[in-house]
Amino acid sequence: MEIKGLSHLGGKTEYKQDYAPEMLEAFENKHQGNDYWVTFDCPEFTSLCPITGQPDFATIRIDYIPDVKMVESKSLKLYLFSFRNHGAFHEDCINIIMKDLINLMNPKYIEVTGIFTPRGGISIYPYANWGREGTKYEKMAEERLLNHSIPL
Amino acid sequence: MEIKGLSHLGGKTEYKQDYAPEMLEAFENKHQGNDYWVTFDCPEFTSLCPITGQPDFATIRIDYIPDVKMVESKSLKLYLFSFRNHGAFHEDCINIIMKDLINLMNPKYIEVTGIFTPRGGISIYPYANWGREGTKYEKMAEERLLNHSIPL
Amino acid sequence: MEIKGLSHLGGKTEYKQDYAPEMLEAFENKHQGNDYWVTFDCPEFTSLCPITGQPDFATIRIDYIPDVKMVESKSLKLYLFSFRNHGAFHEDCINIIMKDLINLMNPKYIEVTGIFTPRGGISIYPYANWGREGTKYEKMAEERLLNHSIPL
Amino acid sequence: MEIKGLSHLGGKTEYKQDYAPEMLEAFENKHQGNDYWVTFDCPEFTSLCPITGQPDFATIRIDYIPDVKMVESKSLKLYLFSFRNHGAFHEDCINIIMKDLINLMNPKYIEVTGIFTPRGGISIYPYANWGREGTKYEKMAEERLLNHSIPL
Amino acid sequence: MEIKGLSHLGGKTEYKQDYAPEMLEAFENKHQGNDYWVTFDCPEFTSLCPITGQPDFATIRIDYIPDVKMVESKSLKLYLFSFRNHGAFHEDCINIIMKDLINLMNPKYIEVTGIFTPRGGISIYPYANWGREGTKYEKMAEERLLNHSIPL
Amino acid sequence: MEIKGLSHLGGKTEYKQDYAPEMLEAFENKHQGNDYWVTFDCPEFTSLCPITGQPDFATIRIDYIPDVKMVESKSLKLYLFSFRNHGAFHEDCINIIMKDLINLMNPKYIEVTGIFTPRGGISIYPYANWGREGTKYEKMAEERLLNHSIPL
Amino acid sequence: MEIKGLSHLGGKTEYKQDYAPEMLEAFENKHQGNDYWVTFDCPEFTSLCPITGQPDFATIRIDYIPDVKMVESKSLKLYLFSFRNHGAFHEDCINIIMKDLINLMNPKYIEVTGIFTPRGGISIYPYANWGREGTKYEKMAEERLLNHSIPL
Amino acid sequence: MEIKGLSHLGGKTEYKQDYAPEMLEAFENKHQGNDYWVTFDCPEFTSLCPITGQPDFATIRIDYIPDVKMVESKSLKLYLFSFRNHGAFHEDCINIIMKDLINLMNPKYIEVTGIFTPRGGISIYPYANWGREGTKYEKMAEERLLNHSIPL
Amino acid sequence: MEIKGLSHLGGKTEYKQDYAPEMLEAFENKHQGNDYWVTFDCPEFTSLCPITGQPDFATIRIDYIPDVKMVESKSLKLYLFSFRNHGAFHEDCINIIMKDLINLMNPKYIEVTGIFTPRGGISIYPYANWGREGTKYEKMAEERLLNHSIPL
Amino acid sequence: MEIKGLSHLGGKTEYKQDYAPEMLEAFENKHQGNDYWVTFDCPEFTSLCPITGQPDFATIRIDYIPDVKMVESKSLKLYLFSFRNHGAFHEDCINIIMKDLINLMNPKYIEVTGIFTPRGGISIYPYANWGREGTKYEKMAEERLLNHSIPL
Ligand SMILES: [Ca+2]
Ligand SMILES: [Ca+2]
Ligand SMILES: [Ca+2]
Ligand SMILES: [Ca+2]
Ligand SMILES: [Ca+2]
Ligand SMILES: [Ca+2]
Ligand SMILES: [Ca+2]
Ligand SMILES: [Ca+2]
Ligand SMILES: [Ca+2]
Ligand SMILES: [Ca+2]
Ligand SMILES: [Ca+2]
Ligand SMILES: [Ca+2]
Ligand SMILES: [Ca+2]
Ligand SMILES: [Ca+2]
Ligand SMILES: [Ca+2]
Ligand SMILES: [Ca+2]
Repeated sequence: MEIKGLSHLGGKTEYKQDYAPEMLEAFENKHQGNDYWVTFDCPEFTSLCPITGQPDFATIRIDYIPDVKMVESKSLKLYLFSFRNHGAFHEDCINIIMKDLINLMNPKYIEVTGIFTPRGGISIYPYANWGREGTKYEKMAEERLLNHSIPL
Repeated sequence: MEIKGLSHLGGKTEYKQDYAPEMLEAFENKHQGNDYWVTFDCPEFTSLCPITGQPDFATIRIDYIPDVKMVESKSLKLYLFSFRNHGAFHEDCINIIMKDLINLMNPKYIEVTGIFTPRGGISIYPYANWGREGTKYEKMAEERLLNHSIPL
Repeated sequence: MEIKGLSHLGGKTEYKQDYAPEMLEAFENKHQGNDYWVTFDCPEFTSLCPITGQPDFATIRIDYIPDVKMVESKSLKLYLFSFRNHGAFHEDCINIIMKDLINLMNPKYIEVTGIFTPRGGISIYPYANWGREGTKYEKMAEERLLNHSIPL
Repeated sequence: MEIKGLSHLGGKTEYKQDYAPEMLEAFENKHQGNDYWVTFDCPEFTSLCPITGQPDFATIRIDYIPDVKMVESKSLKLYLFSFRNHGAFHEDCINIIMKDLINLMNPKYIEVTGIFTPRGGISIYPYANWGREGTKYEKMAEERLLNHSIPL
Repeated sequence: MEIKGLSHLGGKTEYKQDYAPEMLEAFENKHQGNDYWVTFDCPEFTSLCPITGQPDFATIRIDYIPDVKMVESKSLKLYLFSFRNHGAFHEDCINIIMKDLINLMNPKYIEVTGIFTPRGGISIYPYANWGREGTKYEKMAEERLLNHSIPL
Repeated sequence: MEIKGLSHLGGKTEYKQDYAPEMLEAFENKHQGNDYWVTFDCPEFTSLCPITGQPDFATIRIDYIPDVKMVESKSLKLYLFSFRNHGAFHEDCINIIMKDLINLMNPKYIEVTGIFTPRGGISIYPYANWGREGTKYEKMAEERLLNHSIPL
Repeated sequence: MEIKGLSHLGGKTEYKQDYAPEMLEAFENKHQGNDYWVTFDCPEFTSLCPITGQPDFATIRIDYIPDVKMVESKSLKLYLFSFRNHGAFHEDCINIIMKDLINLMNPKYIEVTGIFTPRGGISIYPYANWGREGTKYEKMAEERLLNHSIPL
Repeated sequence: MEIKGLSHLGGKTEYKQDYAPEMLEAFENKHQGNDYWVTFDCPEFTSLCPITGQPDFATIRIDYIPDVKMVESKSLKLYLFSFRNHGAFHEDCINIIMKDLINLMNPKYIEVTGIFTPRGGISIYPYANWGREGTKYEKMAEERLLNHSIPL
Repeated sequence: MEIKGLSHLGGKTEYKQDYAPEMLEAFENKHQGNDYWVTFDCPEFTSLCPITGQPDFATIRIDYIPDVKMVESKSLKLYLFSFRNHGAFHEDCINIIMKDLINLMNPKYIEVTGIFTPRGGISIYPYANWGREGTKYEKMAEERLLNHSIPL
Repeated sequence: MEIKGLSHLGGKTEYKQDYAPEMLEAFENKHQGNDYWVTFDCPEFTSLCPITGQPDFATIRIDYIPDVKMVESKSLKLYLFSFRNHGAFHEDCINIIMKDLINLMNPKYIEVTGIFTPRGGISIYPYANWGREGTKYEKMAEERLLNHSIPL
């Protein structure tokens, strides 16, 4: 079996040392006839604070409804790894990841959540979402934003 | 007591070694006068990665509103077992299971969720749903898709 | 203090050996001026599989909005006990319990859920609901059915 | 600092031996400019069964949106304590508490839930709510009643 | 890297001994093109009861949708710390924190929740929210208030 | 079937209003040939503070190895109920319960634990134990006391 | 493959209606060269109260070190099922189960625990154990009894 | 009822602003005839870091076996409160609390544990214990220290 | 970097279709100067029932103290995978895995536990252990066997 | 206040890019008169696999009994950070950390545990300990090793 255009799966893996959106790769959705969700749970995300250099840790959650393209999960792992030695604030990480995945896949809908570990007794959980402009998914994004909350 | 057309229940069981949708059997809904839900929780699902051959593990959740036919639970077990030595990606499993159950039962509404165990620090949770075309259940499927989320 | 027509409470209890809807007794709602919910959580339900005779176990959840009559909780216990040596499928139990309670109380709204323990690695959770025909509770039943789900 | 009309706080406490709604005291809402919720979680409620005299135990949850008056929490504690040797059914307790608090505060909205411990293998969880007549809170009460449920 | 106008981050920290809203500092939102949420989880909040002087403890949760300005998290920590030796009731704390953050940031939407530890067997959980007047966020605030609840 | 000397089981129940050790009743151990444990878990205990009159709440755990006599569980319920309007400190309750049960049963070994709910932010968990003098159970009591701890 | 003397496995199952120790069947231990534990967790046990006829429910836990014979798990299920319509007190159930298993297997060591659901606010958890007389397992039984406790 | 020498209970409370061991008060043990444990669970402890001035938060657990004197719980609360604006390292807090309680009560045995919240991704849990010199409790302290561990 | 004799790590993986102890590979312990534990948690184990062919699922836990050789974790994964289509009873799996690992590594001490999912309402948890003959680890095995238990 | 020889606390922090045991700093134990434990819980540890370069994640737990010197917690954080871009196997990390801390502090006793996240469905939890040679702590290390286990 073969999946065109995927370079990471089953081969030798290279881990990038800084932010590397070019690691992301996509394959074709085999079920374009019906809408469905794909959720990625990524509890091993780490980046650096751009001011102090201190490492930050988070669980990143990605939820999206694919259209034609879907992100390949090993390429996603390598992409998230590239934040390891990169400086970015919590809110930036979440917005950047969302925008890179939009660029890659042009999905119908996507949302990204970060559950960062506490610093000085405070934890930060940013959340961003997006629906394709001019479609019902744009309105869907607005509704989900309105109803968003993270359990106490 | 007897239930026509069910061959698995109470008899000797044969476990198929590869994808076998023909294992699925249905019986007649005795409560067609009112809509209701049936939920199956299947924490013992396993398949093979079509690329590496590595086994994948998941909890499969199936929720549906029956019309005339209902899937018999032992036949469902044997059907899910037939993925054991079959290669399929996570998203494919979920869509295939949903479509096979639609073919079998022609339910009013159905949804299928997979909670796969992590690989390389990332877990994937696909979710697909469907409502019968041209009925209120089609709109119901759209609304539930819009509101879907898996707890953090 | 006295409550007319209740025969079980505080007296000697008789446990019926087979399905006995006649055990159910009702008393009058003292707060008919406002709608409210009563929830019963019954983790000690057991019945028999009608095919194999094997015992089934479940938590039964009953939620309803009373009108004039309310089911007395000890009579409910004895009624549920009468399934102990009775053969019925999971989905049947839930629909039968709901219908017997509708007959007894004619409530504004009712729903019944069963959380059955696993057999062969699969658990079944049936759910049925009902709102009084021709009232806003009928529409309420439809909306709650649409939004129903059991946490993963 | 002083708060007019509050007699319990910081002084000597008297515990009433039977149902005593006169214990309830209110103070003025300092934030009448914006709607907000106050939730009381009361896991130490106990009353007596009016038939058998057996003690009942519950967690009482009170949620309300204040208007001008707010119930003072120590007076609430003493009021709930007054059920300790008082006979009342589960559903009555919840409705009575709600009505007494409406009388005291005339809030915009209120709801009261009881999570009673099991008797004979069955637990009862009553829930009542209310919104001020002729306002949007009346409709809010109806919507929240429609959507009410207690997690399995 | 530099962020204009932030005085706390990376420097020497001064802890104020009484309520000090002037500690709050903001920086500019880099993702003004899309709405998103920022959640702060602050389990180390403590204040004093204005009547008895007894310390109160709470987890404070802040959720907001930024517009141009965003509160810097270390300044938030120092601001919350300034309640440590300050007397304020539970409901006041929540409303005051919300209003101070509105003044600082003029966000599109904000909500503040307090989960206070029990006193005399009762816990209090106040919740306030706000959406910018004359925008869709004002209606959003009303809807979220209507649907608010804290899990049992 | 009949069990001599037991007056509470299956009959009408009287609830005593103050400390009533005479409620305790015993029956004969049918398995005196082998040592075994009986554990009672009693989450519905309540007493009064002897100084302030405020109600206290606790889960009482009783563990013992019977010799000839065993405490009947309904009589234990009524006995524990008799603390409901009785004033006693937490440590006293635990020691008194243990001593009353020793008087009733003369067991080989017994221990009693109380998990009281917090007051002013502090919870108290007293624990007492006893082994029959001059037997190996006396040494057993000493060893278990040495190793006692309540999970954090 | 065949295992001599086992009649239940893979064949048609008969469920006995009253206490039936003759249902128990054993097979030969294939690993007699080394001591090891087998634990059975049985959350679906139910019996009747011999006085009131009310059903009791429990999780039964069986732990043993086999010698030559081992209890076959399906025969154990059928044996436990035979308590379904049988009257026995909690402590009796546990001691009877232990003795029947000793008779069947003559194990080196065995212990049986019952976690019964609450009645009238009190739960009972009996525990019995046994080691073969004149061996080190007899002393082992004494030590484990001494150290036994069920988590709070 | 009266307890000699206790000044805090039921009266007006004064909260000290800095470390105040003189707040601690004792009363006489009424059960000196048998050894028993008293455990205090104090989840509302806070102190200041002596270097940075940043507040620290912890749950303090105190376990002891009384001899003649016992610490009164409200005086303990006020004593622990006096660390609120006092600078001390985590390990110092635990050792100081233990030594102050030894001075007050001269117990047979005591241990003190601190579960501090994380700073910079690391949490510290100090634990100290002590048994009266020249008694079996001294050896007991050594054994418990040897076996100490805090669950992962 | 290179580790002699390891063929699986970083290369192409072959998944064996039946019991394949030859998959196991070892590497040399770099810390032979001190005893330490290595624990493997393997929640994705599955085998077949040798009688019915039905799949069994378990979490396998392996704990050992290495001497000179240590099992390489990817080879362990492939070895455990080889039970996927192999028929073996629960107790056999655990004993076989333990013996194969003893053959491979000749460790100082080893124990293997299986937490199998329920069949017909009963779960089985076998546990076997071993210490090298003629050393203190042999006695250690006996002591750990004596103290073994799986939490309720 | 000042603590001699500590360079990290309160100053500007430098994060080393590779294994840097020289980051570790100690201060003097102020309570040398009594033995006590210090536990560090470090859920943010990450290293690299020396073969594949893939990041590994773990919670590191350090428990020790100090003698004269104690490790300063911020220096510990920086030391653990230095594994971030360093290649080491799980078992090596644990042994190296333990040995570096022995070199720094020469404690009476120390143990180090690693709870690593799963790879390919298997998690590894190494554990090493050490007691000072020729003292009772050496024997203590042996006893704790014998009794070590990580909860299922
Ligand atoms: Ca950052
Ligand atoms: Ca936390
Ligand atoms: Ca796959
Ligand atoms: Ca996970
Ligand atoms: Ca059935
Ligand atoms: Ca009642
Ligand atoms: Ca329960
Ligand atoms: Ca306050
Ligand atoms: Ca008291
Ligand atoms: Ca608490
Ligand atoms: Ca019974
Ligand atoms: Ca400190
Ligand atoms: Ca098997
Ligand atoms: Ca289970
Ligand atoms: Ca590694
Ligand atoms: Ca896991």
